[in-house]
Amino acid sequence: VTSDASRHLPNAIDLRALRLEIEEFNTDYAEALDSGDLEKWTAYFTDDALYTIIARDNADAGLPASLVYCEGKGMLKDRAFAILNTTMFAPRYIQHFVANVRVIGVDQDGIIAARANYLLLETLADGHTRIQQSGRYRDKFVRRGADLLLAERACVYDTLTVHNSLVYPV
Amino acid sequence: VTSDASRHLPNAIDLRALRLEIEEFNTDYAEALDSGDLEKWTAYFTDDALYTIIARDNADAGLPASLVYCEGKGMLKDRAFAILNTTMFAPRYIQHFVANVRVIGVDQDGIIAARANYLLLETLADGHTRIQQSGRYRDKFVRRGADLLLAERACVYDTLTVHNSLVYPV
Amino acid sequence: VTSDASRHLPNAIDLRALRLEIEEFNTDYAEALDSGDLEKWTAYFTDDALYTIIARDNADAGLPASLVYCEGKGMLKDRAFAILNTTMFAPRYIQHFVANVRVIGVDQDGIIAARANYLLLETLADGHTRIQQSGRYRDKFVRRGADLLLAERACVYDTLTVHNSLVYPV
Repeated sequence: VTSDASRHLPNAIDLRALRLEIEEFNTDYAEALDSGDLEKWTAYFTDDALYTIIARDNADAGLPASLVYCEGKGMLKDRAFAILNTTMFAPRYIQHFVANVRVIGVDQDGIIAARANYLLLETLADGHTRIQQSGRYRDKFVRRGADLLLAERACVYDTLTVHNSLVYPV
Repeated sequence: VTSDASRHLPNAIDLRALRLEIEEFNTDYAEALDSGDLEKWTAYFTDDALYTIIARDNADAGLPASLVYCEGKGMLKDRAFAILNTTMFAPRYIQHFVANVRVIGVDQDGIIAARANYLLLETLADGHTRIQQSGRYRDKFVRRGADLLLAERACVYDTLTVHNSLVYPV
Repeated sequence: VTSDASRHLPNAIDLRALRLEIEEFNTDYAEALDSGDLEKWTAYFTDDALYTIIARDNADAGLPASLVYCEGKGMLKDRAFAILNTTMFAPRYIQHFVANVRVIGVDQDGIIAARANYLLLETLADGHTRIQQSGRYRDKFVRRGADLLLAERACVYDTLTVHNSLVYPV
């Protein structure tokens, strides 16, 4: 828990409920991607959401260069459409494991900062399963009615061997 | 959450409690397998449970062909006995990681449909740890007193390189 | 749940709250290691804590030989200092996934026995991510004010190919 957010930090019980709610969000989000439902994937973001996939080196150094950069739901939908209409995406199957979910704090506008670790596995046409990418989500959630939505998700990856011409979302 | 089950869907708080309870079930279930206690493993199923290990291709296409098919606790016990009395099982150690647990719904008979992702690691005699199999559980639970039991568990795997003459349970 | 601890076993609701609290502990603990904050890592232990990294073979046989043995916070700090001042530590990045957290019981002195599975990934300088080690924590927690602290953590690993001259903590 960062000290600058402590002024607006909910109590321990609220933080736990929030952590569990974000776990459920991440499970549904991962299921949309793993089942190839990219239209549904875009529904987890606000209209003006920022979605990036960025190497940990660059993220830590504050460098803007990212592998994927989508600003707004339009760009997310364009990406989903492009992926669904290409044969470039090689893995036969993907599967997300999301763990170590952590709530960092809630600011005065109700924006929830959170983290999680993700492990993305891919099974290639030869039937072999391997680690495609491991990293962490750096998230900002907002509440819309009963639901959480992502105002920002930075997928900060350790694995530097990710280099596709058309990167599948994480 | 599927729409056809929504009539009988518990409220959000109940769903969360159920999710947490299934997590605990899966942790105990995995521990039984990882410690080689196959007798205990069979105790997590109802007497007439259906247990299958099936490739995702076949499961998605509705094809019945599966790698393992056990109908009823007798077949589960036969399998456990066969594995415990063979030298065919090669890995030195196995370890399950279960994540992304999701409650789909509860039907009018109280049967709970749920999902989870599993990652099965194996450590071979040379001491090297690798991914043996990744997949998802497609479960139907029933309640017996204070406990949950599996009326059905389909282990739907992505990894197609799983081919043992005597497959260890997942 | 072991029978000998059942006399002092909290009820189901308390056990769940404890499980969730330990999950949050493990997430923070992993974050300290993954971000390289080894000074913070030592703060998760009591002054006289026992911390070991031991092969499953030895742990199961009750043999004392371990890869790492630290008795007391002084030895933990020595280790942290040695690692931070060496170039021997090869992986570029590490990342922990902790799952399958389980509370075994609480004894008459309030010491909480728990387990968890850990998966340690490493990304090498070439950018490739691989499994460095998989294993399980065998923990004894004590409560100090609002916080949990580790009085004992045995990291029991399956992977036998872990052999560094200066092993990074798990």
